[in-house]
Amino acid sequence: MAFANNPKYTGVIPPVVTPRTAEGAIDVPGLRSVVEHLVTGGVTGLFVLGSSGEVPYMTNAERELAVSTIAEANNGRVPLIVGANEQTTQRVIEEGRRMIELGAQALVVTTPYYALSNAAEIEAHFRIIHAALDIDIFAYDVPVRTHVKLPLDVAIRLATDGVIAGVKDSSGDDVSFRQLLLATSHIEGFSVFTGHEVVVDGALLGGAHGVVPGLGNVDPAGYRRLFDAAVAGDWAQAAKEQDRLARVFDIVYTPDSSRVSGGAAGLGAFKTALVEMGVIAGNTMSAPMADLNDSEAAAIREILAETGLLGAK
Amino acid sequence: MAFANNPKYTGVIPPVVTPRTAEGAIDVPGLRSVVEHLVTGGVTGLFVLGSSGEVPYMTNAERELAVSTIAEANNGRVPLIVGANEQTTQRVIEEGRRMIELGAQALVVTTPYYALSNAAEIEAHFRIIHAALDIDIFAYDVPVRTHVKLPLDVAIRLATDGVIAGVKDSSGDDVSFRQLLLATSHIEGFSVFTGHEVVVDGALLGGAHGVVPGLGNVDPAGYRRLFDAAVAGDWAQAAKEQDRLARVFDIVYTPDSSRVSGGAAGLGAFKTALVEMGVIAGNTMSAPMADLNDSEAAAIREILAETGLLGAK
Amino acid sequence: MAFANNPKYTGVIPPVVTPRTAEGAIDVPGLRSVVEHLVTGGVTGLFVLGSSGEVPYMTNAERELAVSTIAEANNGRVPLIVGANEQTTQRVIEEGRRMIELGAQALVVTTPYYALSNAAEIEAHFRIIHAALDIDIFAYDVPVRTHVKLPLDVAIRLATDGVIAGVKDSSGDDVSFRQLLLATSHIEGFSVFTGHEVVVDGALLGGAHGVVPGLGNVDPAGYRRLFDAAVAGDWAQAAKEQDRLARVFDIVYTPDSSRVSGGAAGLGAFKTALVEMGVIAGNTMSAPMADLNDSEAAAIREILAETGLLGAK
Amino acid sequence: MAFANNPKYTGVIPPVVTPRTAEGAIDVPGLRSVVEHLVTGGVTGLFVLGSSGEVPYMTNAERELAVSTIAEANNGRVPLIVGANEQTTQRVIEEGRRMIELGAQALVVTTPYYALSNAAEIEAHFRIIHAALDIDIFAYDVPVRTHVKLPLDVAIRLATDGVIAGVKDSSGDDVSFRQLLLATSHIEGFSVFTGHEVVVDGALLGGAHGVVPGLGNVDPAGYRRLFDAAVAGDWAQAAKEQDRLARVFDIVYTPDSSRVSGGAAGLGAFKTALVEMGVIAGNTMSAPMADLNDSEAAAIREILAETGLLGAK
Repeated sequence: MAFANNPKYTGVIPPVVTPRTAEGAIDVPGLRSVVEHLVTGGVTGLFVLGSSGEVPYMTNAERELAVSTIAEANNGRVPLIVGANEQTTQRVIEEGRRMIELGAQALVVTTPYYALSNAAEIEAHFRIIHAALDIDIFAYDVPVRTHVKLPLDVAIRLATDGVIAGVKDSSGDDVSFRQLLLATSHIEGFSVFTGHEVVVDGALLGGAHGVVPGLGNVDPAGYRRLFDAAVAGDWAQAAKEQDRLARVFDIVYTPDSSRVSGGAAGLGAFKTALVEMGVIAGNTMSAPMADLNDSEAAAIREILAETGLLGAK
Repeated sequence: MAFANNPKYTGVIPPVVTPRTAEGAIDVPGLRSVVEHLVTGGVTGLFVLGSSGEVPYMTNAERELAVSTIAEANNGRVPLIVGANEQTTQRVIEEGRRMIELGAQALVVTTPYYALSNAAEIEAHFRIIHAALDIDIFAYDVPVRTHVKLPLDVAIRLATDGVIAGVKDSSGDDVSFRQLLLATSHIEGFSVFTGHEVVVDGALLGGAHGVVPGLGNVDPAGYRRLFDAAVAGDWAQAAKEQDRLARVFDIVYTPDSSRVSGGAAGLGAFKTALVEMGVIAGNTMSAPMADLNDSEAAAIREILAETGLLGAK
Repeated sequence: MAFANNPKYTGVIPPVVTPRTAEGAIDVPGLRSVVEHLVTGGVTGLFVLGSSGEVPYMTNAERELAVSTIAEANNGRVPLIVGANEQTTQRVIEEGRRMIELGAQALVVTTPYYALSNAAEIEAHFRIIHAALDIDIFAYDVPVRTHVKLPLDVAIRLATDGVIAGVKDSSGDDVSFRQLLLATSHIEGFSVFTGHEVVVDGALLGGAHGVVPGLGNVDPAGYRRLFDAAVAGDWAQAAKEQDRLARVFDIVYTPDSSRVSGGAAGLGAFKTALVEMGVIAGNTMSAPMADLNDSEAAAIREILAETGLLGAK
Repeated sequence: MAFANNPKYTGVIPPVVTPRTAEGAIDVPGLRSVVEHLVTGGVTGLFVLGSSGEVPYMTNAERELAVSTIAEANNGRVPLIVGANEQTTQRVIEEGRRMIELGAQALVVTTPYYALSNAAEIEAHFRIIHAALDIDIFAYDVPVRTHVKLPLDVAIRLATDGVIAGVKDSSGDDVSFRQLLLATSHIEGFSVFTGHEVVVDGALLGGAHGVVPGLGNVDPAGYRRLFDAAVAGDWAQAAKEQDRLARVFDIVYTPDSSRVSGGAAGLGAFKTALVEMGVIAGNTMSAPMADLNDSEAAAIREILAETGLLGAK
C-alpha cells in the first residue's frame, strides 16, 4: 500500500491521556512518562487535549500545563496535533491561538456543540477558523459528543478548498467514512484518520491514512505493527493484530456500568492499564468521574496479561 | 393562587438577548435599551447569558461586557440570574466565580455537556459546584443542547438538600415537569421555572413559580399579564393571554429553514422583532449564524402588528 | 368552558387494557369487567386496541376477539374508537376494514413505522386510508413508538381537508400540541386529545377536547371529575384532581426497571392496579413482557390506598 | 481465507427487490427476471421479504405471492432466507409458519418494534420463536427501523445456545460487529452477515461470512467477485472491487431528498437501475412512496455506465 496523495500526517497518533495525582492535580511526571511510552512505542504523532485526554474536564490552566509538558517531553520527535475544544467559532479561535503559542503543529476542531447549528453554519465555522489561524486544521467528527454529524458534502468541500488538512472520524458511520475516503483520495496531502479502535484494519484497507486510537495509549506498539502490516500489504497479519487489539479493547467493558459512566469507563480503563503496566502511578479521574476500583483493575490486569501487555513489566 | 412554599424567585425572568452592531461587536447601548424595555415591561428578574443571549457564541470578554452592562442598566431593580455556561464542573466553577464578581445574584448551571455523563456524575457536578460557590444555583435542564435529561430523582435530591435553589426546565418533558412540581412543592423557598413560551398557563396551573421565556424579550408585559392573571386565579384570562402569545411566538417560524438554523431562527426572530419595535438598531447574529433578511422581517412585522405589539411605536 | 367548534368526540376515552388468563389467553370475562368498570366510571368513549391494550402483542385472532368482546360488553353505551395498528398504508386499510366490520365507530391510525417515511409520505398515508375507508379517522401521534413526529403542518392540512376527525397526541411535545389546538380550533367537529396522564388540566386549559389516559383504566371517575371541573371552568379543582391523579400515576414507576421494560412497566401497573381493585383476576402480560411481582403489587396497593382507590372495594 | 467454523450460510445473499406494475400490483414476470439476474450473477442465496423488498408495504397476500414466485423461479438453486417481519413474538411466529409453508429454508427476524422492549424481552422473543418454529433463524439487527440495537451479549448468548443460526447486521455499529465476529467465530456453522454495501471488504477482513447488500440487486456479479477475492486472500483486489461498488452505490444519492424519502431513495434507485439494465419494466414503488423520475433515472444511468454496468445491455 502506498498513499497516492502524499498525506502530510499518517500512522498512529493516539490521544494522550492525562494522569492526575491522588489530589486531582495534573501528574506532570506521569504525563511525561506517558509521552515516553508512546513515542518509544512507535507512534507517529501525538493528539493532545482530545476526549481521551479528558479535555472537557480541564481548566484553561490545566490545558496549558498539559500541552507544555507534552511538548517538552516530546521534544520535537513527533508532530503535536492539539485539540482546540470550545463550543463555537470565536471561542475556538481564541483557544487555538493559545495552543499554537504552546507548540501545536496542527489543531483539532469539532463542529459547534451546545449551540444548535445547521450545515451552512458548520461550514462557515471551519472557514472562519481557518481564515483566522495559520495552521493545519483537522475536522473532528464526533457526533456522540457534539450530537451533529459533520455532513459529508461539507467535509469534501472543506477538504477540496484546503480549509482542513484532514478529518478525524469518530462518527461510527462507516459508510460515510468510506465515501469520504473515495472523495478525497486525490487531494494532495490530505489525511483521513479513524478514531475507532477495533476496525482499523478495515479502515486502512479502505484507504485511511492513520488512526487516533484511545487504546493506543495502552498498546502503541500494537497499533504501529497493525499500521506497518497494512502499509506492507500484509492484510492477514493486520487483521490478526487487530483481533488481538480488539481483545485488549475489552478492558473498557470491565467497569461496572451502574457505577461508572460510559465516558469514564473507557478513559478509566486506559489509565488503569497504564498503572498496571507501570507507566503511571495512579488512575485518578477528573471530577466528577469515578475512578475504577480494585476489582476492575484486576479484570483489566487479566486482559493485559492474556494479550501480552504485562510481559515487559 | 398563592405559592405555599414562599419561593425566593418568581414571575417572569426572560433570558436577555444580546444585540450586536453591524460589525459584530456587542451593542452596548442596544443592550441597555433591551434591559429598559424588559424592566419597564414588568419582568421580575433578568436571566443573563442564557441560550437566548447567544452565550455559547460569546468570548469571555464579551460575556463580561454583557453582564456588567446589564448590571449597570438594571441598577438593582430586579435580580440578575446569570448563566455559568461551561462544559464541566471545574470550568463552571471558574466561570461562576467571574459571574459572581460581576454582580450575579444567582447562577444558572446546566448538566455537563460534550462530556458523556451518568446520573451520579450529574449529581456530583451540582454538589461540587454548590460547595465551591456561595450563591443560589438554578439547575438548567435543557437536553436539546446538553443531550441529557436532568434525572427527576437527582433534581429532587438536589432540591431537598438545598444544593439548588430552583430548576429552569426547558426539557419539553411535561410529565417530568409536573412530577418535579409535586415533589418539591413543600421545599421552602424553592422555585421551578418553565422555559417554554407557549404552555406557561398550564405550567402555572400545575404549580410552576415562574417562566423564563425567550419571547419575553419581545413581549415582557404580555407575560407579566399572564403571570398576574394566574396568580389572581383568573385562568380563562391566563389562557387567553397565552393564546395571544402563542400567536406572537409564530415569529420564530418565519425564517427560511433551508437558510437559517433552528438555533438562529428563534434568536434571530426575537432580535428582529426588537428592531421592528424600535428597541434595538439591528438584528446582527453572532457568527456563524445567519441574520434574518428583509422578507423575514416583514413577516415578523405582520405578526407583531396583528398581536398589538407595534401600537406603541 | 364550551367547545366552540362542536367537537364530535370529547371527554375521557381510555385505551382499554387487555387482561390475560394465567395461560396467556385473552381473559374474556375480565375484559368485560374492565369495560363495565370504565363505562360506569363515566368515560365518554373507549379506545380499543391501543398501545395500553397491548395491541402490538396480539395476534389477528386476538384482536378480533378483543374488539368483539368490548363491543358486546359496551352495548352501544359509548363510542368505540379502534386502533388499526399496522406498519403501512395498505396494511392499515386491510386492518381497518376488519375493525369496521367488528363495530368500530372511528379508527386510530399512526404514521407508518418500521418503514422510513418523510412528511409527504405521511400525508399521503392518511389521505389514501381516508379515501379507502368510510369512517372517522384519528391520527395517533406517538413518536416514542413510530420514531417520527406527525408534522404540525401535515396535521393541520389533514384536519382542514376533513381527512382526519381528530388527533390523539402522545408526542410529549407540548408546544406543538398548543399550536395544533390554536390552528384547528375553528374546524367544525374536530377533536384534539392528549394521551398524557399528568398534564390533562393544562391541556384542557389550552383547549384540548379530551384525554386518552392509560391511567384512566385505573381511575376513570377521577379523569371524568377532572374533565367536568375543566368544562365548568373550575380550574383550581381540575388542577387538584390532576395532582391526585399524578400521584396515582406513580404506580407506573414501581416496577424494577432492571427486570421490567419501560413498555411493560406502565401496562403492568395498570393491570396490577385493576387486580388490586378487584376488577380483573390476574396481571398476566403478553409474552415476552414480564409480569409484575408481589412486591411491586404491594407498592401499587399502597399508592391506590393513599389516593382513595381501594375504598369502594 | 477459510471459515474455520464451517458456516452453513456464506457469500452474497441480496435482499430481492419487488417490482410492481404501473398499476401497483406485484410484477410477477419482473420478479422472476430479478431472480434470474441474481442467480446467474452468482449469488449464493436470496433474502426474500427484506426491507429492500419493501416488505413493510406488502399486504399478506402480496407477501405470499412474492415468496411463491421467487421460490418457483429459483427452483432450488440457492437457499431462500425469508423475512418474518412482524411487530412482536406471536405475530412473528404466525408469519414464520406461513413462510415455512411457502418454502423458506431460514427465517430472518428483527427485534420487536413499535413495542418498547428491553434486553430480556428481546432475548425471550428469539427464544420463544425458536422454540415454536423448526427452522434456522437469523437475527436481523436494524436499529434504524426498530430503534433498538440487538445487544451484543444477547446476540452472543443466542448464538451460543443455538437459538439463532446467524446475524444479519445492518446496525452501522462496526465496533459491535467486530466484537460479535470475535465472540462467535468458534461456533460451528454460525454465520455473521453485514448488510452494509460499501464496507464489505473490511467486514470480510474482520471475519464476516457474507453480505446482504441491497445494491447486490444491481450488481450481483460485482459482490460475488469481491467475496471471491476475499476468500482467496487477495485483499487489494477486494478493496478495488469495493471501491467500484461504492461508486455504484452513489445511485442511492441521486433522488431529490425534498421529494423522495430516505427509505424510498435507496429502493427506488435499485429498481430504477434494474429498469435501465433491462431486468424489469418499471420502477413503480409501493404507495405512498414516490417513484423516481426521469432526471433521477438519467443520473443513475450515468453512474451505471461509468461503472461498467450497462455494457451487457
